[in-house]
Amino acid sequence: MVSLDLIKEISLKTPSKIVLVVIDGLGGLPDPATGKTELETARTPNIDKLLPNAICGLVDPVSPGITPGSGPGHLALFGYDPVKYNIGRGVLEATGINFNLKPGDVATRGNFCTVDDKGIVTDRRAGRIATEKNAELCKLLDGMVIQGVKVLCAPVKEYRFVAVFRGPGLIPDVNDTDPEMTGVPPLSAKVQIPAAAKLARVVNEFIAQAKTILAGQHAANMILLRGFSVPPKMPTMQEIFKLNPVAIASYPMYRGLAKLVGMGVMDTGETVQEEFATLKENYGKYDYFFLHVKGTDAAGEDGDFARKISVIEQVDAAMPVLINLNPDVIVVTGDHSTPAALKAHSWHPVPVMLYSRWCRTDRMSHFSEANCRTGAIGRMPTENLMTLMMANALKLKKFGA
Amino acid sequence: MVSLDLIKEISLKTPSKIVLVVIDGLGGLPDPATGKTELETARTPNIDKLLPNAICGLVDPVSPGITPGSGPGHLALFGYDPVKYNIGRGVLEATGINFNLKPGDVATRGNFCTVDDKGIVTDRRAGRIATEKNAELCKLLDGMVIQGVKVLCAPVKEYRFVAVFRGPGLIPDVNDTDPEMTGVPPLSAKVQIPAAAKLARVVNEFIAQAKTILAGQHAANMILLRGFSVPPKMPTMQEIFKLNPVAIASYPMYRGLAKLVGMGVMDTGETVQEEFATLKENYGKYDYFFLHVKGTDAAGEDGDFARKISVIEQVDAAMPVLINLNPDVIVVTGDHSTPAALKAHSWHPVPVMLYSRWCRTDRMSHFSEANCRTGAIGRMPTENLMTLMMANALKLKKFGA
Repeated sequence: MVSLDLIKEISLKTPSKIVLVVIDGLGGLPDPATGKTELETARTPNIDKLLPNAICGLVDPVSPGITPGSGPGHLALFGYDPVKYNIGRGVLEATGINFNLKPGDVATRGNFCTVDDKGIVTDRRAGRIATEKNAELCKLLDGMVIQGVKVLCAPVKEYRFVAVFRGPGLIPDVNDTDPEMTGVPPLSAKVQIPAAAKLARVVNEFIAQAKTILAGQHAANMILLRGFSVPPKMPTMQEIFKLNPVAIASYPMYRGLAKLVGMGVMDTGETVQEEFATLKENYGKYDYFFLHVKGTDAAGEDGDFARKISVIEQVDAAMPVLINLNPDVIVVTGDHSTPAALKAHSWHPVPVMLYSRWCRTDRMSHFSEANCRTGAIGRMPTENLMTLMMANALKLKKFGA
Repeated sequence: MVSLDLIKEISLKTPSKIVLVVIDGLGGLPDPATGKTELETARTPNIDKLLPNAICGLVDPVSPGITPGSGPGHLALFGYDPVKYNIGRGVLEATGINFNLKPGDVATRGNFCTVDDKGIVTDRRAGRIATEKNAELCKLLDGMVIQGVKVLCAPVKEYRFVAVFRGPGLIPDVNDTDPEMTGVPPLSAKVQIPAAAKLARVVNEFIAQAKTILAGQHAANMILLRGFSVPPKMPTMQEIFKLNPVAIASYPMYRGLAKLVGMGVMDTGETVQEEFATLKENYGKYDYFFLHVKGTDAAGEDGDFARKISVIEQVDAAMPVLINLNPDVIVVTGDHSTPAALKAHSWHPVPVMLYSRWCRTDRMSHFSEANCRTGAIGRMPTENLMTLMMANALKLKKFGA
């Protein structure tokens, strides 16, 4: 793997265009009845039509055997080392609601929860309160100043919210206060390194005040915090790749991830069709497009093999919109596998196809895990894909004399 | 990738022999009419006859998507990390004309150029003066001593020359004086780190004197320098692999690259046939042979698909000379791809075949990119090839107890 510094040195600004279609959780496992995975079962005539000018392969977002979260899965696709640039849960959650994090902010993911008279957690999700209720409660907690630190609270969804601690000298190495079980009280914040003492004091004071404020709000009468983290310092895609990149993603978290690496973010609709329409409308303004499809992952996590196939087929049906724009490079892949059989993200390498006039095609007939296994991309870290996309768009100079 | 230190510990001196045939720029792209690359189109019956005892694969000289220059391409083949041991432009140019660089020398590539009355560059190549004129001008500049530093100048070709600064305390971190455009004056040498101050002073004084000396030599009335660099400190192939290695290469640059890693260099002729004859004549004296064929790369850069095929077929025709010597290991590969379709070096992985009694053959029928894609070597960094050659020559001990 070459460094981003090296890529920065050899990358070129050119008019060529790259489109990355991420079908979230694309990789699957076979249905025992047919022996075929979701992708192998799906009818994808439009993607398959690209294969005579494409190469296929399998990519590992982190490393063989490692199951990636959405953060590492996407950072690897954007060309970043997903272990070096690991994004904390708090930052990811804040990013996901478009919260404008500033340098030095410590973000954390909060749950509204239920505690009994003795302070024992009886429901970690406060009966999955409505998002509207969550927003009301966040208003009660938002804006407190504790020991010179401002605490900002913003709702995410149902019982989930974001708390951001803003002030000088905050080091995020504090344990979660969420015990991740019921029948016990919330944990207090304790330092993992001495320098985090200030944050721990502020957090404990904040939780104490929150408990008082929420006392009458049963079921949401307490909070649990986890994933204290600061925004990673990372070079943008503009700096490294000299691209003008944009994200088209209906889910906030993926827009947030895109922003972390410097991408612009388009407003778009909820459906696959609307996302592709947004791509078409804005095609002239950018040279790198990240289009994210969420439905496959959601279906996989629900264990719904048929629905996952159906979302893949929706993407395929929308592909002509993209193909007619005639980009120099098209990549179709996932950020990780989410086999319906496992109902969860998995470690399985992710099928990928890269279309380009210059790719030295491997002439596969169908985009599938089985064909990808013998494709010309071989098996490689997802992180390398970005370099390969840049190369195929003729956006990289020679390295070395 | 294991370190060279580890290989050094386990490498053995044995009588077995290794021959590496580098067909420069071997990898290609398909002819749209036939769907076949240069190598896939070429008739290579002699190489193919080795395949029942060979393994095939695809190798990446630097990393997937990265287009290598000749320096990194060859260093990887010789078993060195081509990013760690990146060779500066000045050193490569000096190496290419067989200039005998000493430790501490700073080498730079020079252009004779044209400046107008106001000192503005009007032609960065001085009307591409003849090499003979270049040699005359180099004589005028060669041998100056400035602040205790000797400046050596030697012609390369047309307007290109090499300037070497020899003296104590020279650090090469000085910017290019070549502005890489016309309509502006040459840049002065400025330090990139304070320690380079002495070199910057000497360079600026040298350029001032050169300007005076060349004043009447229009069009070549000024010089531009770039790529200030020192010879890399690298262990030799003798030290690491305990080999007695030799290079057979008609082009000076490849002889130079071979010298950097400690290889001996044979005098040889210009043709493929003559190079193989040189191999045969000297077969008893060495245990590692690097035979370099330039014509394929030159044809690729000219976009001449047919000529590239013809050079590959010349190599194949000469192979019986090598095969009859019965070396323990034969590798046929390239230092990078140079598809005629791109008229340039490219990032595409390079086909390789390794013949050895002990290789666990994959029984391919023809040496081609398509077959290499599914070969037993798989896809790996070029850097690993050297270890694989050593292993197949039974020149590596077990690692660990």
